[in-house]
Amino acid sequence: MHQPVMTRDDVEAFLEQEFPQLHYGGRTYHIESVGPLSAQLRMDYHERHIRPGGTLSGPSMMALADLAIYVAILAQIGPVALTVTTNLSFNFLRKPGKRALIADCRILKLGRRLAVAEVGIRSEGMSDLVCHATGTYSIPSNAVS
Amino acid sequence: MHQPVMTRDDVEAFLEQEFPQLHYGGRTYHIESVGPLSAQLRMDYHERHIRPGGTLSGPSMMALADLAIYVAILAQIGPVALTVTTNLSFNFLRKPGKRALIADCRILKLGRRLAVAEVGIRSEGMSDLVCHATGTYSIPSNAVS
Amino acid sequence: MHQPVMTRDDVEAFLEQEFPQLHYGGRTYHIESVGPLSAQLRMDYHERHIRPGGTLSGPSMMALADLAIYVAILAQIGPVALTVTTNLSFNFLRKPGKRALIADCRILKLGRRLAVAEVGIRSEGMSDLVCHATGTYSIPSNAVS
Amino acid sequence: MHQPVMTRDDVEAFLEQEFPQLHYGGRTYHIESVGPLSAQLRMDYHERHIRPGGTLSGPSMMALADLAIYVAILAQIGPVALTVTTNLSFNFLRKPGKRALIADCRILKLGRRLAVAEVGIRSEGMSDLVCHATGTYSIPSNAVS
Repeated sequence: MHQPVMTRDDVEAFLEQEFPQLHYGGRTYHIESVGPLSAQLRMDYHERHIRPGGTLSGPSMMALADLAIYVAILAQIGPVALTVTTNLSFNFLRKPGKRALIADCRILKLGRRLAVAEVGIRSEGMSDLVCHATGTYSIPSNAVS
Repeated sequence: MHQPVMTRDDVEAFLEQEFPQLHYGGRTYHIESVGPLSAQLRMDYHERHIRPGGTLSGPSMMALADLAIYVAILAQIGPVALTVTTNLSFNFLRKPGKRALIADCRILKLGRRLAVAEVGIRSEGMSDLVCHATGTYSIPSNAVS
Repeated sequence: MHQPVMTRDDVEAFLEQEFPQLHYGGRTYHIESVGPLSAQLRMDYHERHIRPGGTLSGPSMMALADLAIYVAILAQIGPVALTVTTNLSFNFLRKPGKRALIADCRILKLGRRLAVAEVGIRSEGMSDLVCHATGTYSIPSNAVS
Repeated sequence: MHQPVMTRDDVEAFLEQEFPQLHYGGRTYHIESVGPLSAQLRMDYHERHIRPGGTLSGPSMMALADLAIYVAILAQIGPVALTVTTNLSFNFLRKPGKRALIADCRILKLGRRLAVAEVGIRSEGMSDLVCHATGTYSIPSNAVS
């Protein structure tokens, strides 16, 4: 089994330095853990993510999924800021309620040029998925040895 | 050809009332026009959309595409706040530079229960797409006569 | 947990009657099992699925995933021939070798109007996925009570 | 504007040699034309593509879209058999009737490592799309100079 080369704290420190805009408007995205070909993130319930009826916006879930895949890949291959998203696909399954969201990312393939992952998002404390995402990231030529 | 039932100003007024959170952190998303099975939106270049190297974030483009499809559908079927996104798929093609983005949405199918649309996003004044999206929205049973 | 209303044999008999074209060119698609919100299918290694280098064609995997989702949904809701695919999305992860493929389908949401599922396809006897798919099916109004 | 480096006949001859399995069960897929960043294909109406009610199967349309993108890319970059599909996404919009299908492919990005394209499929002689697809292909390192 592939083992990550960065810890949760390593990835967090890297993001703080490279992507301070992640926290624009309030710190709501958190890395819970990273593991072999996986990562878990959390998004706090926050005013700027709300939509009519008290549900959470699609874009806030899309940002969470995108970040979860990025974190999972970074943890495996090390600090490569230039990894870029090439494809993201989302199915919105249920309307999330007024609570934090948990995103579980699993890397399906970690190739030399491309990594593919899936993400399941659910409300904290619940088991049904509210959103399922898959994504492909392009990895710079010199990133993985 | 299908004709829209709301003008650009109608849709804008509806969004102002129903989705004030769209403008959280600064008003950057604008409706340029609506037409038969189509809509054009604009996203201003703004600090909160930036990523390292001066490019614009994936989530800000995803939010723009989602909104463009919502606006295009609303304009055709009238003010139905409960229309929900069921699927969104994105291909990120090029890194956008430091300028506003223009999103052109075209509805591919406007059914009784589902609407499907595609969106091409490009930097203002340029022709190459930076992002291409397709999306499906579920329409409430009583919305279209 | 949702329980299926058709057995594996029920679904097979239904497909034999309604979709004899599935077996055009030779019987290669088989239902292994159906379960709660799930199904497992198998595609035999066969000359008509081969591509240069001895790998299996993308379209043969796409047909397998589409059928796996259809079987999984049918088993849960009963014999509704008119269920239609509205969206399918595939990530091709590795080139499958010269062996049968196994497709495991899991339904992520079984709603009244839409069902969403994911499928993992791997070579028989292997654990790495060769293809991952997600799909959405529209269910006729009178199908689920 | 990018110009193709292979003619329609060049691509056809290449496919005949490299992918004879395309025609398993009867020759139904045809290249109509190739152009700058584009290609048009045709799929004959044939017994093996039919589904109940006289409509055409999803998998036959998926195979057509996959082939259309492959042909469009080949025509631009030359005979590179190893180009591989990494992602395909389909929206099924309307049920096609008992006629041939026409697929129009447009390449959205032709990069050194990845090409992204969209395909619109319609029944011959009609204008409404029955299926819309987007796809990503990985190009071997030594293919494009």
